[in-house]
Amino acid sequence: MASMNFEDPEVAKFLDQTYQLLKEDALQKGTDREYPVMNFKHPNELKSLLDLDITAGPATYEQLLEEMKRMIQYSPKPGHPHYHDPFYGSLDAYSQAGSWLSSSLNVNLHTFEISPVFIVLEKYIFKKLCDLVGFQHGDGMFCPGGTNCNFFGLHLARFKKFPEVKKTGMFSLPTLRCYISEDGHHSLLKAVNYLGFGGNSVVPVSTDDRGRMLVSDLESSITSDIEKGYMPLMVMATCGSTVLGSFDDLTAISKVCKTYNIWLHADANWGGGVAASKQHRHLLKGSHLCDSLTWNLHQLNGLPEQCSVFLINDPTGNALEEANSARAEYLFQPDKHYDISYDSGDKTVQCGRKSDVVKLWMQWRALGDSGIEARIDQAFENARYLTEKLRTNEGFKLVLPEFECTNVCFWYIPHRLRGQLEDNKWWQEIGKIAPKIKERMTRTGSLLIQYQPMSNKGFVNFFRAIIHNPLCRPRDMDFIVEEIERLGHDL
Amino acid sequence: MASMNFEDPEVAKFLDQTYQLLKEDALQKGTDREYPVMNFKHPNELKSLLDLDITAGPATYEQLLEEMKRMIQYSPKPGHPHYHDPFYGSLDAYSQAGSWLSSSLNVNLHTFEISPVFIVLEKYIFKKLCDLVGFQHGDGMFCPGGTNCNFFGLHLARFKKFPEVKKTGMFSLPTLRCYISEDGHHSLLKAVNYLGFGGNSVVPVSTDDRGRMLVSDLESSITSDIEKGYMPLMVMATCGSTVLGSFDDLTAISKVCKTYNIWLHADANWGGGVAASKQHRHLLKGSHLCDSLTWNLHQLNGLPEQCSVFLINDPTGNALEEANSARAEYLFQPDKHYDISYDSGDKTVQCGRKSDVVKLWMQWRALGDSGIEARIDQAFENARYLTEKLRTNEGFKLVLPEFECTNVCFWYIPHRLRGQLEDNKWWQEIGKIAPKIKERMTRTGSLLIQYQPMSNKGFVNFFRAIIHNPLCRPRDMDFIVEEIERLGHDL
Repeated sequence: MASMNFEDPEVAKFLDQTYQLLKEDALQKGTDREYPVMNFKHPNELKSLLDLDITAGPATYEQLLEEMKRMIQYSPKPGHPHYHDPFYGSLDAYSQAGSWLSSSLNVNLHTFEISPVFIVLEKYIFKKLCDLVGFQHGDGMFCPGGTNCNFFGLHLARFKKFPEVKKTGMFSLPTLRCYISEDGHHSLLKAVNYLGFGGNSVVPVSTDDRGRMLVSDLESSITSDIEKGYMPLMVMATCGSTVLGSFDDLTAISKVCKTYNIWLHADANWGGGVAASKQHRHLLKGSHLCDSLTWNLHQLNGLPEQCSVFLINDPTGNALEEANSARAEYLFQPDKHYDISYDSGDKTVQCGRKSDVVKLWMQWRALGDSGIEARIDQAFENARYLTEKLRTNEGFKLVLPEFECTNVCFWYIPHRLRGQLEDNKWWQEIGKIAPKIKERMTRTGSLLIQYQPMSNKGFVNFFRAIIHNPLCRPRDMDFIVEEIERLGHDL
Repeated sequence: MASMNFEDPEVAKFLDQTYQLLKEDALQKGTDREYPVMNFKHPNELKSLLDLDITAGPATYEQLLEEMKRMIQYSPKPGHPHYHDPFYGSLDAYSQAGSWLSSSLNVNLHTFEISPVFIVLEKYIFKKLCDLVGFQHGDGMFCPGGTNCNFFGLHLARFKKFPEVKKTGMFSLPTLRCYISEDGHHSLLKAVNYLGFGGNSVVPVSTDDRGRMLVSDLESSITSDIEKGYMPLMVMATCGSTVLGSFDDLTAISKVCKTYNIWLHADANWGGGVAASKQHRHLLKGSHLCDSLTWNLHQLNGLPEQCSVFLINDPTGNALEEANSARAEYLFQPDKHYDISYDSGDKTVQCGRKSDVVKLWMQWRALGDSGIEARIDQAFENARYLTEKLRTNEGFKLVLPEFECTNVCFWYIPHRLRGQLEDNKWWQEIGKIAPKIKERMTRTGSLLIQYQPMSNKGFVNFFRAIIHNPLCRPRDMDFIVEEIERLGHDL
């Protein structure tokens, strides 16, 4: 075997069998309620179940297929209607087709010549997404994940304030400060570490009881920092926080930012999807006032990982190019025979950049604006249904009176703890419940939901169901409640 | 349409047809000499040929298939045996299977629970690759592209020298310096910009006539910088330079680095693949002396974009975790029921991280060590054949007497310029030839080779054939020579 020729009948047969396996085991069974959402094995068990050795020499086609089958068997199924764990997941035929197309064409987006179709697609998509968030002078860039998009926000904020950084670095800059709600994503901590600001430059701002940044506290932190001689550079507002799903008030934050000449970057990685829904886009109100915004389309919009876009509201039209260009003479020759403004590679920090746009384009083309809107609205509808169900069940306690974005957060109260005084001791007991149920859930493979504590609000371990799978129906919401009750009633 | 259910017969049929289209048009025809390597259209032509609008509402399956067909038609074919343009390319059924598997499973590698199989695979692969480059205490991380891997080298160099940077940033650091050969990749410029060092921190070191860093010049730059009060932080050695394919002398550079306590990072993004070949691994001699090394497996090893690994020679065993962790309590709960040392997500800067490991594992498992070695050796054999062919043809002039890595660099001399005095005027004329041939080549769609000047060596525009496709045979090398002669003889 080991033929590299796609015309070889044996190779073609292997591909055909691979396709059948993926369709049946990963896509069909992986989204079918009759099959488990996961089949957990501990690391050492897993190592003995897989045949990892790649050294031995050519494998047969049967061995390769067998191994892929096992990998599917022991991997969780993020497209399953009982998978409500992290923010990504969901599978559909259209974005899968786009993803496979991207892999089969294997083009790199640095110059127009070698990636004409996807560069044209990107320009089109950036315009579309900028329109949705209200960026009049919008430009965009796909980055490898939402965290990297947030890095870009900080990078652009720094460059626009201190363009000389590109040459002279941060060695002689004033000490800079960035502001984020205490419920904001940890990617800002990663960003300040990576980009050379250090963790001390992050100022966490308190949140209200729904997890939204307290804008009065933001302003007092800023004025206090200025008095101390620090320079405020950026506010990272959160649109759909990681745990509670909260949306900061962009209009109020923008007003503060304008007063103090601070870059406003919106982390809409999770919540950005609401921009496509007439019913829910009010949650992003004020997005047009931001300087930049990031949106993970592999989250609420359900694209396969990764599909993350950084958008910038840039009246100059060349901020990305100016901030990032290195003008390598071996890539961006000036004497090319076509319009080199389409050589978009120097607008980013990557050199090789795989195509993430085509899966997004395919899904949107398949569903249309109305279909994209319907899937967002349906996710909210499911979250609402689940919330009401939990509210009226004595075995559950909601963390917030209402859900935010489509995060539904709750404690399970086992029978022995119901109807008791909710004192510290009681809460300590409750904090031990979620990890125990989670362990049983994982062994059973029936359901996937994350739990976590939330120290800044004094919340002990609670479950957080993230609802976005378009396959979910009310009965899947019912299943969450029933299954947790089944797994935990004796605890 | 617009069903999200994979059991829906219409959806299953659409997937079947998508698969057939990808197999036939992208993979089979895309690697078949009977079909063109590209079908170039200028941006505005392309926009009118594609039906970009995604707003209008649900598309029919026929429309989606039609549009994918067109995207394939107007995209270049990097797996084609006449495609010798950039460093990536090549297609094989095994890594495509792995890539599609990765997309269909759509798991994210932050915690073991949601990505058990691929985390186990990664650990196995890091060990394998570290063994090949001689890292005794090796650890690794997949990063989104080789440029990002180089960022990691700089990031780790900074962290290991100044761990306090993670908290306090670079504001009060001494002015740092990084060294790279003047033939090194522009990603170091991108890195110092992004990570806050600034472009002035990059010191280009001269190269010899084969494009290798002059180690004596490196040392004198370092001592001169120290005298000026700068602090040398990192040398980025190049293993397979972008234009000429040169390999720096890692052993000699390492000696200098040890003397001055400087981090040695090897950019083996292009040349790393030689580590798998007994015949060619001498080019990486001294790799075990480096502190870190990056290797783009989507280049010489021919995996689909992206497959980039950062390797670190780390006796402490926890440098990646220490440099990058943010310990988000909503991801890395300490009270989990399994061995949380497998939660590898906090070892990197990404939060969502797609799986790049499985396509690598699949290809290597399919071919075995011997098959991987054979493909590397064959690429060198093809480069050797082409070089000899060009050497003996009066219409061509080699840029270097021998090829480096598998970069074959040459000028084409049209008839009217043969046998003349090679003065400045003659060279000026030669510099205009490659862009003209390139334009014709692109219109014809028969061949894809890049050209560029090389200012630091005074070379006017020349062609650079990058040879790595395992489908290439001597007749494809013959074709390069014949086709350029055909396209350029009258110029």
